[in-house]
Amino acid sequence: MAEKVYGLHAVRALLLRHAARVSTVTIAEGRDTRLAEIQSLAQKAGKPVKRIAPAAFKQLFGDAVHQGVYVDVQPLEPWHEEELVAGITRALEQGGDKPFVLVLDGVQDPHNLGACLRTADACGALAVVIPKDRAVQLNATVRKVAAGAAETTPLAVVTNLARSLRLLKDAGLWIVGADADAPKLAHEIDLSGPIALVMGAEGAGLRQLTRDTCDYLARLPQRGAVESLNVSVATGMLLYEALRQRVAGAAARK
Amino acid sequence: MAEKVYGLHAVRALLLRHAARVSTVTIAEGRDTRLAEIQSLAQKAGKPVKRIAPAAFKQLFGDAVHQGVYVDVQPLEPWHEEELVAGITRALEQGGDKPFVLVLDGVQDPHNLGACLRTADACGALAVVIPKDRAVQLNATVRKVAAGAAETTPLAVVTNLARSLRLLKDAGLWIVGADADAPKLAHEIDLSGPIALVMGAEGAGLRQLTRDTCDYLARLPQRGAVESLNVSVATGMLLYEALRQRVAGAAARK
Repeated sequence: MAEKVYGLHAVRALLLRHAARVSTVTIAEGRDTRLAEIQSLAQKAGKPVKRIAPAAFKQLFGDAVHQGVYVDVQPLEPWHEEELVAGITRALEQGGDKPFVLVLDGVQDPHNLGACLRTADACGALAVVIPKDRAVQLNATVRKVAAGAAETTPLAVVTNLARSLRLLKDAGLWIVGADADAPKLAHEIDLSGPIALVMGAEGAGLRQLTRDTCDYLARLPQRGAVESLNVSVATGMLLYEALRQRVAGAAARK
Repeated sequence: MAEKVYGLHAVRALLLRHAARVSTVTIAEGRDTRLAEIQSLAQKAGKPVKRIAPAAFKQLFGDAVHQGVYVDVQPLEPWHEEELVAGITRALEQGGDKPFVLVLDGVQDPHNLGACLRTADACGALAVVIPKDRAVQLNATVRKVAAGAAETTPLAVVTNLARSLRLLKDAGLWIVGADADAPKLAHEIDLSGPIALVMGAEGAGLRQLTRDTCDYLARLPQRGAVESLNVSVATGMLLYEALRQRVAGAAARK
């Protein structure tokens, strides 16, 4: 079953980086120059291009920002632990930006998983790691909320999260857990290196075994009346902080 | 119609800061010492305390993290423009932390508005500002997603957003708009002063008139394949950055 992924940026990324999985490209009729660029990319990749009426997009995607283009793409297969470790090793060998992965310790709500996938993709995470049991898995709701990210950022599904975190450590990542009671704030910890950022489940936080495996614990500044941040928003804040430190570090090195 | 707001932190905040609007406090039967503290706060505030079976909480709130306590509270009335300006003036006169407000320029989805309210509350925003027309308003879904924040952080509903932004400027706020094409990243702009942070609608971004009213435009670092961040996640990142600068600034002044 192919998935439909829309939007200029996502379609461009899929054609450039994952062309093998793209079957067809569909473009709205009209004279949009940005769509002409997509058409030429599709032709270079040897993909058939269909033209349909703009109104047909509305029927397919409702009010989503489809920008008049979508691809049919074979879904990205979930990674196993070995592929995750191999991906990290490859990224570390290649040099350049230090890789980081997002680990979700038992998130239950498909909207939260989808939102975390979307944010992880936007921030350039190598993969998102979830446990196979007692956590929501990739489904249609997750894919929809992820808005294409499920086809570009791999989801790694692991049997034993604590063991996988130790493997990530051995592969060269620092393990940073988000914890409301951590003594240090996120910006007081170096998040610019190769890291796995571990978020707890909605309301429950990190499990004890997960927490014990972390090299660092980081908390977010909070000042409000309500109990806690939504896990997808907290994830966004921590991924932002990791990215901010990378950008600020790169600027300082110039 | 009273609203039910649950959770230790939210109930404590309502009893300490908004006791006049609280009608009753309901606590799960049992010997939780944290609930004993809430009971004594309720008694000091002269509020009746009901005891119910823990299972009854499950029926009312499902899997939410209610922590065995809720209050019935009169809903917070939306602010008008004048109350918003008066609130800012008061906060500036009181000194201490510089006030900041979150402005949502036409958010359509109730989940996004609820999530933004919750995050704004968690970050200590003075108020959240929305336009009266062509934007989702406070409703049951928004309240539920806001997880109590709708009863503690005021929503200001304004007729003409561009005019309101000029009033906020006159009241002493700097207006900072989130814009994917802004030349500067959020962390390159001083967000530690009194500010209004303006977010655009889902997909559409800021309206031209709103953008023209901004003193600064800020963008978030992005590296992904999907088109853009969800507005509630982007809001979380920018509020985090504002709070980080405040915390880091306070630490540097020590």
